[in-house]
Amino acid sequence: MDSGQSYSASGVNIEEAQASLESVKDAIAQTHNENVLGGIGGFGGMFNGQFPGFERPVLVSSIDGVGTKTKVAQLTGDYSGLGHDIVNHCVNDILCQGAKPLFFLDYFGCSQLERSIFNRVVSGAAEACKSVGCALIGGETAEMPGVYHDGEVDIIGSIVGVVDEPHKLPNPPIVAGDRLIGLASNGLHTNGYSLARKVLFNDHGMSARDPLPTDNETTIGEALLKPHTCYFNAVYPLLSQNLAIKAIAHITGGGLYDNLPRVLPLNVQAKINRRSWQPLPIFEAIQSLGEIPDADMYRAFNMGIGMVIVVDSDTSEQVVQAINDAGIPAAEIGKLQSGPQDVQIV
Amino acid sequence: MDSGQSYSASGVNIEEAQASLESVKDAIAQTHNENVLGGIGGFGGMFNGQFPGFERPVLVSSIDGVGTKTKVAQLTGDYSGLGHDIVNHCVNDILCQGAKPLFFLDYFGCSQLERSIFNRVVSGAAEACKSVGCALIGGETAEMPGVYHDGEVDIIGSIVGVVDEPHKLPNPPIVAGDRLIGLASNGLHTNGYSLARKVLFNDHGMSARDPLPTDNETTIGEALLKPHTCYFNAVYPLLSQNLAIKAIAHITGGGLYDNLPRVLPLNVQAKINRRSWQPLPIFEAIQSLGEIPDADMYRAFNMGIGMVIVVDSDTSEQVVQAINDAGIPAAEIGKLQSGPQDVQIV
Repeated sequence: MDSGQSYSASGVNIEEAQASLESVKDAIAQTHNENVLGGIGGFGGMFNGQFPGFERPVLVSSIDGVGTKTKVAQLTGDYSGLGHDIVNHCVNDILCQGAKPLFFLDYFGCSQLERSIFNRVVSGAAEACKSVGCALIGGETAEMPGVYHDGEVDIIGSIVGVVDEPHKLPNPPIVAGDRLIGLASNGLHTNGYSLARKVLFNDHGMSARDPLPTDNETTIGEALLKPHTCYFNAVYPLLSQNLAIKAIAHITGGGLYDNLPRVLPLNVQAKINRRSWQPLPIFEAIQSLGEIPDADMYRAFNMGIGMVIVVDSDTSEQVVQAINDAGIPAAEIGKLQSGPQDVQIV
Repeated sequence: MDSGQSYSASGVNIEEAQASLESVKDAIAQTHNENVLGGIGGFGGMFNGQFPGFERPVLVSSIDGVGTKTKVAQLTGDYSGLGHDIVNHCVNDILCQGAKPLFFLDYFGCSQLERSIFNRVVSGAAEACKSVGCALIGGETAEMPGVYHDGEVDIIGSIVGVVDEPHKLPNPPIVAGDRLIGLASNGLHTNGYSLARKVLFNDHGMSARDPLPTDNETTIGEALLKPHTCYFNAVYPLLSQNLAIKAIAHITGGGLYDNLPRVLPLNVQAKINRRSWQPLPIFEAIQSLGEIPDADMYRAFNMGIGMVIVVDSDTSEQVVQAINDAGIPAAEIGKLQSGPQDVQIV
């Protein structure tokens, strides 16, 4: 060793971190509204905690990651959707409780910080925040070359929203006869990438640039990287109408089998008719190439349904219509019946 | 390929994840208070958003990670402190704005989920939350073998607290003549581990079980793994007294040089007397073995000062006394003077 050490020599480049932050400041500032107090750079982000017009405000919070979707971004060099992915995942999660988003914070972990990748991810997160009126009020970047493989990143987000207690979901009674409305996903969203990558890339040696075997119009990379659909703008306006919306389930890891029971009472079973929607080509490709049994597919993937709304049978048609009108394909995909708290897909 | 695939075959073990969550449910439940609404398992955690007695409540939020301190835990097999690390880091961050913690969420990313490690980390986080009256209301676990090196983990936390607007910090005017009170750290807290590991383990081939060259009573592993000090219980009670506390800086990545200016006006400089506290043996060992210049040490590490409080000169002595009485060694370590917005360590 010649003349001592500097911090960047051990793998942490504070200047690159500062330049990276500088490159997204404008995008972040554009998410700020009158409820954000204080600028960027405080030890904590500050947000107005008064909710005028709310009888009994309830804060709703969630933390999530985008999983190994990051590895598909690395294969294609296209990181533009991952910021939308993490924000939309979080927004959908708290929408299940009826909440509208207030603020969001991001964490970007990596082996070595690359400003262009960081910029695309955080700019995307800011765009996604802005489109639902959510403020991006904080974030953290960590370079951990001994923890992450070379060139790899993990993208985490945390969100806080608010719902007025009388309007929070689930809103019982949730009973036999209630209808299940399925909202279309546009792909894997942010779950099932380990299995998808194994089947497509490892076992079958395909490239992200190859056309999808089940849809020549799209490459595998494009199909896998579609950003997680955000359901907020289509669904939230319905919650204040008198539509007897009883519960919402976000279909993430564990699929319909694991996520729908989270909003069901013990003696109520969901019966889903899989023919009520068109499977997406990406799932057909994974299933046929991987020879994967149906049950495993429906547990690993959303299979084309990104959110399920439980609604009274009387208003089901009206809710389906409103969601379609808002631009999200939706249909009645099943109903609730007496039985154990689980999901039957027939 | 013989008979198709299951999800665990691609590296994600949902059963281990469920068993891991089960193993920490009791510890998490013990952090819950009357403000937590709904149990574990919802899509978002719910927390009372009413703050009786507050004139204008302001939410304060932060997201952070523990960095490569995880790699020292891996070397020694001792993961017991990492949960305290992430919670205390977050709690200290929002204390800088004067906030008391309300709720916390954790993210545990790894190559393969090991229940015993997950259990120690999240149980520790729950303990740390409990000791400051903070509820652990959510979390996420991700297995990403292609992103994380074998056996590696990343530990992220997100916190939300509240402060009443008239009491939020910084509280100007912050002026020449104000005093700087340094609160003792017990080690690196959660910053500087890449450099520390490079010097001690890579360049000098030391083991975590070796005694510290500058303190035979402690091993290197023990010194490096001391959990991040939590300053909340010593400092927060002082904020409601009439002690002219003007600002608080949490000394994290970038050290005194980068963190103290975050609370200074443009024309005010901090002058710190480094002889006003005893350097910790761990920093002396790293500096002398690595032949690291002072300036780099003070930028990479907290150097024994984990938090700095800016206080009016009239009340400085009283604040020092109160913090010492609460069990955190504290001393006046410098003062503010006219000059550019930076830090002089003399």
